[in-house]
Amino acid sequence: METVEPLILAGAEGLGERPVAAKTGTLYGVGMGPGDPDYLTVRAVRVLERAPVLVHFCKRGRRGNARTIADALVRDPARELALAYPYTTELPPEHPEYVSALAGFYDDASARLADHLGAGRDVAILSEGDPFFYGSFMHLWRRLKDRFPVEVVPGVTGMSGCWTRAGTPITWGDDVLTVLPATLPAAVLTERLRGTDAAVVMKLGRHLPKVRAALGQAGLLARAVYVERGTMAGERVLPLIEKPDDEAPYFSMVLVPGEGRRP
Amino acid sequence: METVEPLILAGAEGLGERPVAAKTGTLYGVGMGPGDPDYLTVRAVRVLERAPVLVHFCKRGRRGNARTIADALVRDPARELALAYPYTTELPPEHPEYVSALAGFYDDASARLADHLGAGRDVAILSEGDPFFYGSFMHLWRRLKDRFPVEVVPGVTGMSGCWTRAGTPITWGDDVLTVLPATLPAAVLTERLRGTDAAVVMKLGRHLPKVRAALGQAGLLARAVYVERGTMAGERVLPLIEKPDDEAPYFSMVLVPGEGRRP
Repeated sequence: METVEPLILAGAEGLGERPVAAKTGTLYGVGMGPGDPDYLTVRAVRVLERAPVLVHFCKRGRRGNARTIADALVRDPARELALAYPYTTELPPEHPEYVSALAGFYDDASARLADHLGAGRDVAILSEGDPFFYGSFMHLWRRLKDRFPVEVVPGVTGMSGCWTRAGTPITWGDDVLTVLPATLPAAVLTERLRGTDAAVVMKLGRHLPKVRAALGQAGLLARAVYVERGTMAGERVLPLIEKPDDEAPYFSMVLVPGEGRRP
Repeated sequence: METVEPLILAGAEGLGERPVAAKTGTLYGVGMGPGDPDYLTVRAVRVLERAPVLVHFCKRGRRGNARTIADALVRDPARELALAYPYTTELPPEHPEYVSALAGFYDDASARLADHLGAGRDVAILSEGDPFFYGSFMHLWRRLKDRFPVEVVPGVTGMSGCWTRAGTPITWGDDVLTVLPATLPAAVLTERLRGTDAAVVMKLGRHLPKVRAALGQAGLLARAVYVERGTMAGERVLPLIEKPDDEAPYFSMVLVPGEGRRP
C-alpha cells in the first residue's frame, strides 16, 4: 500500500486528534464491504484506523458481522461501542412492539453518539456493505445529520460480493436489475420479478420457500443461484434448484443473472 | 495504510513475479469504484501495484476514465495497454455494424491479452465501478475465462458513489430497488418504474428527455435527483426538476430514493 498518495476528500474533516470540545466530531458511516476485509476501501481503512469511537450493531450476546470484518484493523477495545438490537428475528418488523422498541433503541443510541460528537470525538459507524443501501446506519444518520458534520464512505455491497464469488456477471447491456428484500409478501415478489432481466433477492432467512415459489411463478427458478456468506468463511454457491433444504442464514441471497447483449 | 495486514484471498494467484511461460498468468477484473481513488479497495490497490499488464478501455483519442482513477498508483507507461472502442455513441448499440465491430474488437483484444496470459504475465483489466455490473470487462472475461485463471475484484458501484454524494440513502426497510439503463424504450422505462420504491437510471447521455417523461408518468419526477460525475471532479447534484436543460454526460444518473420503514 506504500505508493498510495494521501488523498483528502472534499468535505472530509480531519480525523481523530483535535482538542476535546474545541469543535464537534464528525459522524462517519463506513461501508465495510461484503465480508472479506480486502474489500474495504482505502478511505474506510483510514477512518477505521483513526476514529476514536468505533460503533457496530449486533444481536444481544453476539459479535456483529461488521465488527468481524474490521478484526485485522481494530485492536483497541477502548475505542469500541457495541449497540445490541432489542429484537432481531423474534418479532416481525411490522409488529407495533418491534417498531416502538427499535425507535427507542435508535433514539438512545443517537443520544450516546451525540455525547461523543459534542465532545469533539469523531464517531465511525461500521456498516455492512454500503451505508446508504438498506442497513441500520441510516437510522442513526437521520437523527444526527442536522447537528453534526457527516461523511459517508461508500462500500462494496454484499450483492456485489455474492455475484463476484458466484463467478457470474449480474447485468449485461440494457438489462434491468430488480433488488428485492425476501421479507416482502409473495404476491409483491412475484409481480416485481416478472419481466425483470436480472434480480437479487436479499435477506433470505426463513423466507426461502416463498422466494422459490415467486421465482417459479416468474419463470426465473432455473436461472437462480443461491449464495451463502459470499466472500466470508463458510461461503457456499450453488444453483438454487440443487439446494435440497430451505435453511438460509441472514447472510444469504438469491441471484438471477441477466442475459443481455453480448457482442 | 501501514497497519493493514497482508490478506491473501482464497484462490488468488501470486501476482507478477514468476518465470515467463512457467505457467499462465491470471486475468484480473479490477473494480475501480465510482471515481474517487480513495474508494478503491485494498485488494484493487494491490493488484494495480503489481500486475505487469494494465488494460483500460477508452474512446479513440481519449484517456479512459478507469485509467484516470488509477493515476495516483500507476506511473509506469510500459505496463499500460489501452483498448480504443471502434464506436461509442456514433451508432446505436443495436445497429448490425455496431454489433459486428464490437464483437471483432473484443475478439482482437482477447487475443492480445491471451498472448500476455499465455506467456505467464498477469493481466489486470481496469473496470469502472464493479466489473460484473454492466461494463465491458465481462466481454473479455467470457472469451478468456475457460482458458486462464481469473480473479474478479468487486468494486464500489458508480450508483453507490452517486447516492453517497447526493447525501441520500437509496433503500430503507423493505424497499424494492429497480436499476434501469436510460437506453431502454420509453414504455419499458415507465413500466418498470411504476410501482418500484426506489430507482436508479443509469447511462443518461442523450436520453434525459425520455427519462424525465417516464419518471413523470410513473409519478416519481418530484423525488428524482440528478447526479453528474459523482465522486469525481466537476461533481453536480440537484433535484431533477431544477435542472434547466437536457444535457447529461455519460457519467450521470438519476436517483429516486426510497421512502421505506424508518423506526
